[in-house]
Formats: sequence, structure tokens, C-alpha cells
Amino acid sequence: MPLHQDFSPRLISGDAFGQLLSACWAAGGAPGAAIDTAERDDGFLFQLDASLYFQTPDEWCPTDRWACERAVGDVLDVGCGAGRHALVLRESGHRVLGVDPSPGAVSVARQRGVDVKQLAVPLPAHHLGVFDTVAMLGGNLALLGSDGTAKQVLASLASVTHEGSRIVGTGMDPHLPDIGADGAAYLEENRRRGRLPGQFQMRVRYGAAASEWFEYLMASEQELVGVLRDTPWRLSEISPYEESRYGVVLVRR
Amino acid sequence: MPLHQDFSPRLISGDAFGQLLSACWAAGGAPGAAIDTAERDDGFLFQLDASLYFQTPDEWCPTDRWACERAVGDVLDVGCGAGRHALVLRESGHRVLGVDPSPGAVSVARQRGVDVKQLAVPLPAHHLGVFDTVAMLGGNLALLGSDGTAKQVLASLASVTHEGSRIVGTGMDPHLPDIGADGAAYLEENRRRGRLPGQFQMRVRYGAAASEWFEYLMASEQELVGVLRDTPWRLSEISPYEESRYGVVLVRR
Repeated sequence: MPLHQDFSPRLISGDAFGQLLSACWAAGGAPGAAIDTAERDDGFLFQLDASLYFQTPDEWCPTDRWACERAVGDVLDVGCGAGRHALVLRESGHRVLGVDPSPGAVSVARQRGVDVKQLAVPLPAHHLGVFDTVAMLGGNLALLGSDGTAKQVLASLASVTHEGSRIVGTGMDPHLPDIGADGAAYLEENRRRGRLPGQFQMRVRYGAAASEWFEYLMASEQELVGVLRDTPWRLSEISPYEESRYGVVLVRR
Repeated sequence: MPLHQDFSPRLISGDAFGQLLSACWAAGGAPGAAIDTAERDDGFLFQLDASLYFQTPDEWCPTDRWACERAVGDVLDVGCGAGRHALVLRESGHRVLGVDPSPGAVSVARQRGVDVKQLAVPLPAHHLGVFDTVAMLGGNLALLGSDGTAKQVLASLASVTHEGSRIVGTGMDPHLPDIGADGAAYLEENRRRGRLPGQFQMRVRYGAAASEWFEYLMASEQELVGVLRDTPWRLSEISPYEESRYGVVLVRR
């Protein structure tokens, strides 16, 4: 009974992440107001309460606190979302510029007082300033995307930093038992195709909206070191693991 | 950049609802443990915290309490899920049999002490007994499906009841402003095809699992009366609306 073939899908290509953040922000960032749904291209759904994006440092995962504490000087917050890290970094005395590709995220972050520009990585060539720290918190090391994309992202981040600048970020290691059978099959398929195992193709869905598909990289420490090869960045420090999560400091040569 | 065409979807056709309930039950029915995602066939996602399925009567919507209070005698609970209504009806002194098509739901309901059989509506012809009340709570009037399917469902419910038996149920009216622009377009498309406007095609998704597509009927009082025409059931009582929700008592001729 293939009822579903009777209608054609009308998913709106749009700012699903921004709509999600806006809905949660309209509810004061409260739990239960909006669910973040990330869909992997094999159909697997990852779901989180969007209140996550409004958490205060005591609610963050320890690796995010670890990485945030290692920020120095002026900070570029890449994938700032609703600005939970940017606001805290500013309160600690840093000058902070946030960037996020989602118009809705930019709007929410701005309403919350974050200085923010609507930009994706790799950053375009135009002048953003020179930063002492690039923050890729909340798992945003995943925005490195893939081995290939990472080279472009890291080069663009080099262009807005100086020798000795750092990236403070948090990432996820896919090679842990809690990835489950579906996750293990996905990693294996990537290996077969000569990709990094944790190179996920994802999109965000919310209501009738779906984002474009994007690359999302989960990497072990060893894989991350491989990704950094022949880039201006080297691994300087790594935190203890918190389940699959870890924090890093990368330093620019 | 159609990255997603590079992998083929591997969504597992399976008991998504059962997996959802099992995950939430493993967490003691706590909020945040599992998200119920219902996908309409235009791609729209409806999301609810699965802790809903373990709520106690004080947490139920008022229309569910209204309908539950109108149960008499022996009760067949159609689409019993994890058994939140069945357990309360039993505590009130009713004999209760639950039916649900999901193996996982049946397993959870059984663990919680509900007498339950794995069956979908329309009910098969084999003997289940004769019930004084059929409960279709938690919005389960929607299991009437469509004008056509409803005739079969209501006939099968007549076969397990007697003259004067009742259906106590709760339903949803789609003709309210909070359906949103996407919902309004969906209703209009149904009208154009000569269907009841609120005849949704839905499936449940959870992790890598997706249920089969199924019909889910939202109907106004007037539309419900239309659906009941030429069936053994007539509308006897309707509750005040609670937003789009209402309770009904249908009585068998």
C-alpha cells in the first residue's frame, strides 16, 4: 500500500536550523519547545532538544568548557548558532565575532546581543579582521566536513588569523561502540568509498523545512591529525575524552 | 551539490513506534529520552517527546480525561501504545484488553501489566470477545483513517460490541488557524482530490527505522458525523473543544 507515492514531497528547501532556533528562542530557550532533527543521508534521524543551543556553561558538556577556557584574545566563533558560547566568551572579556550560515540563527544571535555575520565556512576572502582564536565549539570541528573540504576551511581560517593563533574546538570520535549497528554500517560504507569513516552527509529538518545537505565530520584524534597534514594548523593539546567527545587546541604555524 | 544522491537511503522498514516506546520505557518514561517523529508524506515533521505515552491522568489533555470517564463495563483499548489509558481504566475497575499493531508497543504495554494483543484496525474477524466500550484515546479517532477505511474500522468494532456499546475517543479538528500554511495547503490538496481535508498520510520515524505509511484522519465534528453515516455508530455526545481537540461518545445502534 504505497500511499506515499500519491503525493509528491513538498519539503521546502530552507533555513530549517534558523526556524528551529527561532521557535525555541520564542519560547525563551525552554526544553520541549522545538526538536533539532538532523537526518543522515541513509535516513537515520538524530534528535536533540533545541534548548541545548541556549544552555549556560554549567549545562555544557565538559569538553566545551575545556575548549572555551583555552580561548585567548579576539575570537571568531564559527557556527555560532544562537550564540551560547559567544556570549560567555564576551563576558570573559574577549571581543567576539560570530559567523553562521543560517539567517535565522544570525537573527536570534543578534537579538541576544552577539556581533554576528551571516557566513559559512570556508570563509569568503573578504576582510573579517585578524583573530587570536577561532572557536569551533559545540562539536563544530565537524564543520571541517571532509578531508578535502577541511583543507579549504582551514586555509580560510588561516587567512583571518596570525602565526600563533589557535583554534579551540570540540569534536566527536565515531569509532566507539555507541555508534550502533547503523552507524557502523555507515562508517564501513565510507571506508569502502575511500572516505574518512566519520564523514557524514547530513541535513537539518524542521516542520516543512529542510536545509541543504552538508558534510559533517566525526574524526578520531589520529584521523584529525591526518586531516591537519599539509595545512597551517597543528594539534597542540587534546582533552580527555567525554564519551565520544573531545576538545582540542590547534595552533597556526 | 547533491551529496545525498551519492548514498542510497537505507531506511529500515520497521517498528519505529515500538523502538521509540522501548527507548523511552528503558529510561523510565522520562522526558528527553526519545522523540516521537511523525512524518507527513509532504515531508512535514511533527515531533513530540515520547514521555507523552507514559503520562498519568493529571498530565493528560482534558479531552482524554473527559472521554476516559465515559467508559463503561469491559473496555477494548484500540491503539493502546504503552498502555497509559488501559492502566488507568483497569484501576477504575474495568476489564481492559489493549490492541496495538506495534510489536514493541505490545511488549512495553505487557511489561507494564496490560493485557494486550498485537492487532491493527480494522480488527480481524477472529474472536476477541464482546466489549461495552471501545476506547480510542490519545487522538486515536484518527485511526479511522479515511472515509473509506473508517467504514471497515467501524464495522470491525461493531463485531466486538453489542447494541448500546460505546466508543469513547478523542479526535482533532484540522480546520483551525494553528494548522499553519503548510497544513492549509495539505488540506486544500486533499479537497482537490475529493478526500476529506484532514486525511493525512503519515509514518513514524525513529533512528534508522520507519514504519509503513498509514492513514491518519483529522476531522471536524461535522466531518465525523459524515464519516459515521451508514455505519452502526452515531454521535451521542461531544466535549467542549480544547484547542483543536475534542472528545466524543459514539453509540452503537
